Amino acid sequence: MSDRKAVVLVSGGLDSATVLAMAREQGFACYTLAFDYGQRHRSELQASARLSKAMGALEHKVVNLDLNLIGGSALTDMAIDVPERDVDEIDDNIPVTYVPARNTVFLSIALGWAEVLEASDIFIGVNAVDYSGYPDCRPEYIAAFANMANLATKAGVEGQPLAIHTPLIELTKAQIIKQGMTLGVDYSQTVSCYQADAEGRACGRCDSCSLRRQGFIDAGFPDPTIYQ
Amino acid sequence: MSDRKAVVLVSGGLDSATVLAMAREQGFACYTLAFDYGQRHRSELQASARLSKAMGALEHKVVNLDLNLIGGSALTDMAIDVPERDVDEIDDNIPVTYVPARNTVFLSIALGWAEVLEASDIFIGVNAVDYSGYPDCRPEYIAAFANMANLATKAGVEGQPLAIHTPLIELTKAQIIKQGMTLGVDYSQTVSCYQADAEGRACGRCDSCSLRRQGFIDAGFPDPTIYQ
Repeated sequence: MSDRKAVVLVSGGLDSATVLAMAREQGFACYTLAFDYGQRHRSELQASARLSKAMGALEHKVVNLDLNLIGGSALTDMAIDVPERDVDEIDDNIPVTYVPARNTVFLSIALGWAEVLEASDIFIGVNAVDYSGYPDCRPEYIAAFANMANLATKAGVEGQPLAIHTPLIELTKAQIIKQGMTLGVDYSQTVSCYQADAEGRACGRCDSCSLRRQGFIDAGFPDPTIYQ
Repeated sequence: MSDRKAVVLVSGGLDSATVLAMAREQGFACYTLAFDYGQRHRSELQASARLSKAMGALEHKVVNLDLNLIGGSALTDMAIDVPERDVDEIDDNIPVTYVPARNTVFLSIALGWAEVLEASDIFIGVNAVDYSGYPDCRPEYIAAFANMANLATKAGVEGQPLAIHTPLIELTKAQIIKQGMTLGVDYSQTVSCYQADAEGRACGRCDSCSLRRQGFIDAGFPDPTIYQ
């Protein structure tokens, strides 16, 4: 294994599991980070821990962070329903499942851990194709975050610049799945559903389920998702 | 009161109390935010709540966030001692009391709350003069954060740009104190000490105490701090 350490954001979903496999393939010593932020789909946290262990992460941390105190999203406010739509019904508008500033908060904490670990690489599974409605999934946002991060930290100031890797950013869901299958990702262990039950079984109807299901069809692989 | 809402980061210390007074003076409807991040000086949290109420904040939130899980700072890792130095012993090096990426994490969460409140102003009491050793207290860092924030959020994308106000950034501690005294800030209610006791009494020896004590001397006001 390389000496190069990376912090990898692993939510427990299909995208971040693929990113972890890609970071490992590139030889990084991986430190995985998940957040207990009051999300509905808490079974993704178990998936994150399970995947991190199975895929050889050296350490896995879960940071508690009560974003539901702030609300403003169907994922953290139980009073807002999660939309249930087919792929062709999903438009370019920012959906109610958008969590205000979520990626910024997650990347900031990853930045803090990276600084402590003396890691100068962070991996995140943002995707601008299937989630074009989320402002914090776009390449220009990621570039601005990296620029800010390099002014924020001791490491940035003292000359070791931070790189934010977004290997999925321009891929379709089908391309992500093909990539992960090549790297041996066990997608049956991932939880993407926004309203998965306690056992991690998917609803099959939310945007995340619809995009994932279509991804397997387009990639030409059987869908290993366990539905409710 | 103005309709203009602002999120104000209020730690409970001298600087942020002054910032809250300045934001109120400018007519903002203020929403104050503090963090329980595993800091040694937990009595600052009581100070934050007390000051917010006394100074007319409309709402005060405390977000739990276990930064001690990450460590790397004397403020969050009990194994690292807080340095005790006089003002003239404090140099330009980044001190061990620096908390990795702290302002980035705090501003990110403030950004999320601002988005939910539909506020486009955030106030933070960073100071580049007395804390020149902290990379995330410099004007270029704040500008980069604002740039990133405007790409990160629904509000930024849809055209309401976010402003990050740092009214103390170029002031000395004595200038900050003079400003606050003019606005009626009761500094006896603030806690700046990095190792204050449970009642909020200051050690009088850490960097924060030394800078604060010297500030009152330079400003020509009696020091209302209660020492241990």
